[in-house]
Amino acid sequence: MALRAFHGPVLVVGAGLLGTSIGLALRRHGVEVWLQDVNQENVRTASGLGAGVPAPSTGRPTLVVVAVPPDLLGQEIARALTDFPDAVVTDVGSVKSGPLARLRAAGTPGIGRYVGSHPMAGSEQSGPLAGSASLFDGRPWAITPHGEADPDAVATVVDLAELCGATAVSMRPDEHDVAVARISHVPHLLAVLAAGRLADAPPDHLALSGQGVRDVTRIAAGDPALWRQIVSGNAEAVLKLLGEVRSQLDVLIDAVSTGSRDDLTALLDLGVAGTRAIPGKHGGPTRAMVSVFVSVPDHPGELARLFADAGASEVNIEDVHIDHDPGRPVGLVELLVEEGRAEHLLASLESRGWVTHR
Amino acid sequence: MALRAFHGPVLVVGAGLLGTSIGLALRRHGVEVWLQDVNQENVRTASGLGAGVPAPSTGRPTLVVVAVPPDLLGQEIARALTDFPDAVVTDVGSVKSGPLARLRAAGTPGIGRYVGSHPMAGSEQSGPLAGSASLFDGRPWAITPHGEADPDAVATVVDLAELCGATAVSMRPDEHDVAVARISHVPHLLAVLAAGRLADAPPDHLALSGQGVRDVTRIAAGDPALWRQIVSGNAEAVLKLLGEVRSQLDVLIDAVSTGSRDDLTALLDLGVAGTRAIPGKHGGPTRAMVSVFVSVPDHPGELARLFADAGASEVNIEDVHIDHDPGRPVGLVELLVEEGRAEHLLASLESRGWVTHR
Repeated sequence: MALRAFHGPVLVVGAGLLGTSIGLALRRHGVEVWLQDVNQENVRTASGLGAGVPAPSTGRPTLVVVAVPPDLLGQEIARALTDFPDAVVTDVGSVKSGPLARLRAAGTPGIGRYVGSHPMAGSEQSGPLAGSASLFDGRPWAITPHGEADPDAVATVVDLAELCGATAVSMRPDEHDVAVARISHVPHLLAVLAAGRLADAPPDHLALSGQGVRDVTRIAAGDPALWRQIVSGNAEAVLKLLGEVRSQLDVLIDAVSTGSRDDLTALLDLGVAGTRAIPGKHGGPTRAMVSVFVSVPDHPGELARLFADAGASEVNIEDVHIDHDPGRPVGLVELLVEEGRAEHLLASLESRGWVTHR
Repeated sequence: MALRAFHGPVLVVGAGLLGTSIGLALRRHGVEVWLQDVNQENVRTASGLGAGVPAPSTGRPTLVVVAVPPDLLGQEIARALTDFPDAVVTDVGSVKSGPLARLRAAGTPGIGRYVGSHPMAGSEQSGPLAGSASLFDGRPWAITPHGEADPDAVATVVDLAELCGATAVSMRPDEHDVAVARISHVPHLLAVLAAGRLADAPPDHLALSGQGVRDVTRIAAGDPALWRQIVSGNAEAVLKLLGEVRSQLDVLIDAVSTGSRDDLTALLDLGVAGTRAIPGKHGGPTRAMVSVFVSVPDHPGELARLFADAGASEVNIEDVHIDHDPGRPVGLVELLVEEGRAEHLLASLESRGWVTHR
């Protein structure tokens, strides 16, 4: 990978989870990193972890990475372009069109040096202590150059993503926002609506909960303050899709009310098609997977024993779910494996005494 | 557990996944099981697996378990009550009020001998080959007696659930239907709506997919023919909740359109509350869990090594998610552990050379 852009120091503005992780990832490659945050404690923590050094009061960074909460992106990007007239400036926010529009509306000078980006990585935790040099390893990192972006600035931001271990994926800012509305923001909001219907449910009813409802609602536990800013910042793309969801919900309600089985089946079929559209691991085509279920006693060491035995079978486990069974100290573990490997795994586990079901 | 009800043979009507699994579970206890299915191949397969013997053309079962598709429940329960005037009759369908109403409307004799039930267990696979004696181990099994149900018949169905390894949970038929609408049917339909928005999305957009959207949409892959019958059969309870979802969706759309951050935050907060309302493992109170992330090379044996090392730390792994990273042969494994155990696990894994992040 070309390192042409990293002749000078990188200034990271905002030493939270993402800023600290970027600092740690760049330090792996010996890049000089300066850290800045309105909260000095964050700078001390991040530099203590080895993510860089506190930014000097004077100095000329080659690259500024703005890693602040969504609401502050526009002003912090503008400040960086103004304060550092030679630097390339990027940000790592979840929404790309809004901050760019604000820069244009304000007539911010040097906008050609700004190239937005968005690593598809995070955690339900926040702050510098949650940071990690490997947070971006293998993740997509969207690079979103606007029409006036300087090609060298784009190359610099691609280098940043690749130095951090991510795979750069280039798209227009507006296209990015439409994409994340679809694959992140709207799924999050539907999980929130599903979870919201549980908040006041009788405990007797919730006692029947299985793995399905847990999976559907899991991400709804995310930080409301962060998600409020993300959704507000991507209002246009989110509203377009929510309008489609509302239309489909109306079709669904109508189909259930009138007993129209064709309409209901068409909706359910579309859902199946949607699950198949999500690309498989490592960006390849979706492979046919089957589930192997194993009963596992719920105490330390049993999962280790299961995975050791599964490992001995030389079958690659593609995914794992552990079902939470109310009422019994036995868990049901679901192992997803490639279709052609399931029988071999089942035979191997059964020969080692595991209770399996298909 | 009292076995008073099982003096005679049990007739299982429908030798699919559930019927076969019930036969296998009862045979563990030496109960005589007769199998019947419109598809003789299913009876041959199920009996070959040891789930019972083909039902004799004459004979008087003590208990009839109706395990047919939702649309056929009413007629098959009525047939069993009529054909076997001494037998207790139950079914294992996902919806309880509808079949009961049909029995009452038809003036079916012997309705006191009918007690509905619903094991909270299944698989995305179907048919007798997917059956397992341990399918119900540790699962809730709803028992739904109606007002005229004979107490001895109720006790017989409770015995059935317990002999199959499940935990009997008693509730009224209408209450059951409201409960499963909330914790199963409506979450399924919201997953379908979320997945439906992906079906025609550009591949470039889907390439940014992370674990969140995969979890939200997973169950939408379920069999449309089965779910059409389930949703149609529970239309009233499903429609009431879908009406609530529609109102909340309107509030959401309005909040995003007008930029009302208070309304948006209130909705997001309600979602967080909903995720916390789902009971913890084994029916206990929800415990505080934290995630420990570990980078794992994507080839056989590495997960085994990870779980062996995690097991050596003596920390109980409560749940596991494997993230599918496009672009890189390294997977990110999320281990959920009790809050107080995370640091110990991290230190233990790091000392064994794993790359962890918090």
